[in-house]
Amino acid sequence: MKATLIYGAGDIRVEEVPDPKLENPTDAIVRITHSCICGSDLWPYKNREATEQGGRIGHEFIGVVEETGSDISRVKQGDVVVAPFFYADGTCEYCQAGLTTACPNGSAWGAETDGGQGEAARVPFADHSLMKLDVPVESELMPSLLTLSDVFGTGHHAAVSARVEPGKDVVVVGDGAVGLLAVLAAKRLGAERIVLMGHHKARTDLGREFGATDVVEERGEEGEQKVRDVLGTDGAHSTIEAVGYDQSLSTALNVTKPGGFVGIVGVPQSGTIPNAGRKFGANITIAGGIAPTQANMHELLPDVMDGKIEPGRVFDRTIGLDETPEGYQAMNDREALKVLVRP
Amino acid sequence: MKATLIYGAGDIRVEEVPDPKLENPTDAIVRITHSCICGSDLWPYKNREATEQGGRIGHEFIGVVEETGSDISRVKQGDVVVAPFFYADGTCEYCQAGLTTACPNGSAWGAETDGGQGEAARVPFADHSLMKLDVPVESELMPSLLTLSDVFGTGHHAAVSARVEPGKDVVVVGDGAVGLLAVLAAKRLGAERIVLMGHHKARTDLGREFGATDVVEERGEEGEQKVRDVLGTDGAHSTIEAVGYDQSLSTALNVTKPGGFVGIVGVPQSGTIPNAGRKFGANITIAGGIAPTQANMHELLPDVMDGKIEPGRVFDRTIGLDETPEGYQAMNDREALKVLVRP
Repeated sequence: MKATLIYGAGDIRVEEVPDPKLENPTDAIVRITHSCICGSDLWPYKNREATEQGGRIGHEFIGVVEETGSDISRVKQGDVVVAPFFYADGTCEYCQAGLTTACPNGSAWGAETDGGQGEAARVPFADHSLMKLDVPVESELMPSLLTLSDVFGTGHHAAVSARVEPGKDVVVVGDGAVGLLAVLAAKRLGAERIVLMGHHKARTDLGREFGATDVVEERGEEGEQKVRDVLGTDGAHSTIEAVGYDQSLSTALNVTKPGGFVGIVGVPQSGTIPNAGRKFGANITIAGGIAPTQANMHELLPDVMDGKIEPGRVFDRTIGLDETPEGYQAMNDREALKVLVRP
Repeated sequence: MKATLIYGAGDIRVEEVPDPKLENPTDAIVRITHSCICGSDLWPYKNREATEQGGRIGHEFIGVVEETGSDISRVKQGDVVVAPFFYADGTCEYCQAGLTTACPNGSAWGAETDGGQGEAARVPFADHSLMKLDVPVESELMPSLLTLSDVFGTGHHAAVSARVEPGKDVVVVGDGAVGLLAVLAAKRLGAERIVLMGHHKARTDLGREFGATDVVEERGEEGEQKVRDVLGTDGAHSTIEAVGYDQSLSTALNVTKPGGFVGIVGVPQSGTIPNAGRKFGANITIAGGIAPTQANMHELLPDVMDGKIEPGRVFDRTIGLDETPEGYQAMNDREALKVLVRP
């Protein structure tokens, strides 16, 4: 079969790889019909050291079950399923608590497993890590259902971590796909005012359609002051940080009111959280992290199936598997917000 | 009257200063009977630049009301009262929510106000910022009641921020007075296992008496592994960081299990929070900050009055006001854990 590999910064290739095979009785083989490129795929695309042997990449996919191991009972051949970007065993203490990304037997795709940007994948713990979708494979809902794998589930996790509740003010820092879907998640959870900080008009326009009541284009101190002016307060009850750079983390703390909450879902790129003086002096709680979408996709599914929300609107380009290298380039150049891949 | 001033690192002097006077109808004048030296007083004692004009210092005190402004109705001349280290107006949005340290009209002592290490102080918003104590001024309860001003209230805030609950595992990083009283606070809130990380035997012995079930002397990775071994888990549900150095903050995150909580009450000295990768990967929530003791002293008072708990055991030396410079030296040299000052 064909799959996408990364050989180093800027070096994405689509190559022939061995077909996946069942290895454990809890595995399933899934023929991938829909995949996509994640903002987090751009980190290795920007920075990864060149290697002779490439590594599989991609971690969001929908597909059709092709084969199941002997212990699998919840999904069967022919089922249309979505996989979370981090699969987990579904039975450990953390999985039971809904924190599937802490499962000691779990993993993101592409490390020692198949990647999501390929024609098929071996799925461990398939009874738990696959969620069945009662739709035909060419349903118009597919882009939105694909976001349950990672990007919408991550936006939702950000909003929950930031303690978004009905009637609360929310600031979202970052107008990438996660930030925009955090707006949608905050709206879904009942936020009253949602201020989106971003300066790409096409993106912030979509953010308004998702529920942002205000957009602040400015960055740094100027942007922070504008957020407070817009809200007419010392800052928001809940702030979502969906970038991961020091400046955006610092801004997130500065636009949160004392006693408020910051939910982070952008990996802190410097390895530290800046602006600790603000965090400490204002007793701001910093929550969030790698999102347990294997758990939260079940909560989000009904609203997507009903068509109440359309998180799939973040996809603004669809390509075939062979065009994956160009898809990375387009996202890296900010020509595309998020690219859907049809293997 | 006499009061303590700091002129720079290592330069503490007791000098004549003007007597305090009522300035606002919401003020009271308090004759100070008990004060003390705080671990946080040691930061300027170690680092403050030398200045020609000294600044008032000290922020924890008990005393007797000497005079009240025309708007004061809750305390009267002759009342024995304790003041929080950060006074607040008691009426703003943040005070109403119990976060008195975010009050826009509040302040710590010693900046533009009197310090706590002196013979008397003008107390703003005295109806809210003073708590009446129904005990004679020479009561044996005084050392414990004095801890409500800051150190026990801060330990309690750490435990609440770390979401200590009945039956939970707790790690306390740091065996200073705040760390030890965080142990006591965690015990009071029903923690089951309390692991104290510290290596001063006299202090950790007191920590055991306050409720620590285990002591880990080692630091760094060795200490972190030992904590996990002691608990038999991936780490504690709740960790309290009562130091503020990068190493201790990093350790606090490493000894907390995924989905757990770190409550910080040591001011982060580097201005950043390290080990953000652990925070993010394990979805650990970082809460806490400057403690609202004006609010929480009311909750803690009954157990101190009943003698159920004796937080005042952290005081291991009592001095007169003139000996304040030696008190600082003794705490800085770790000869004394916490010094009580009797003006």
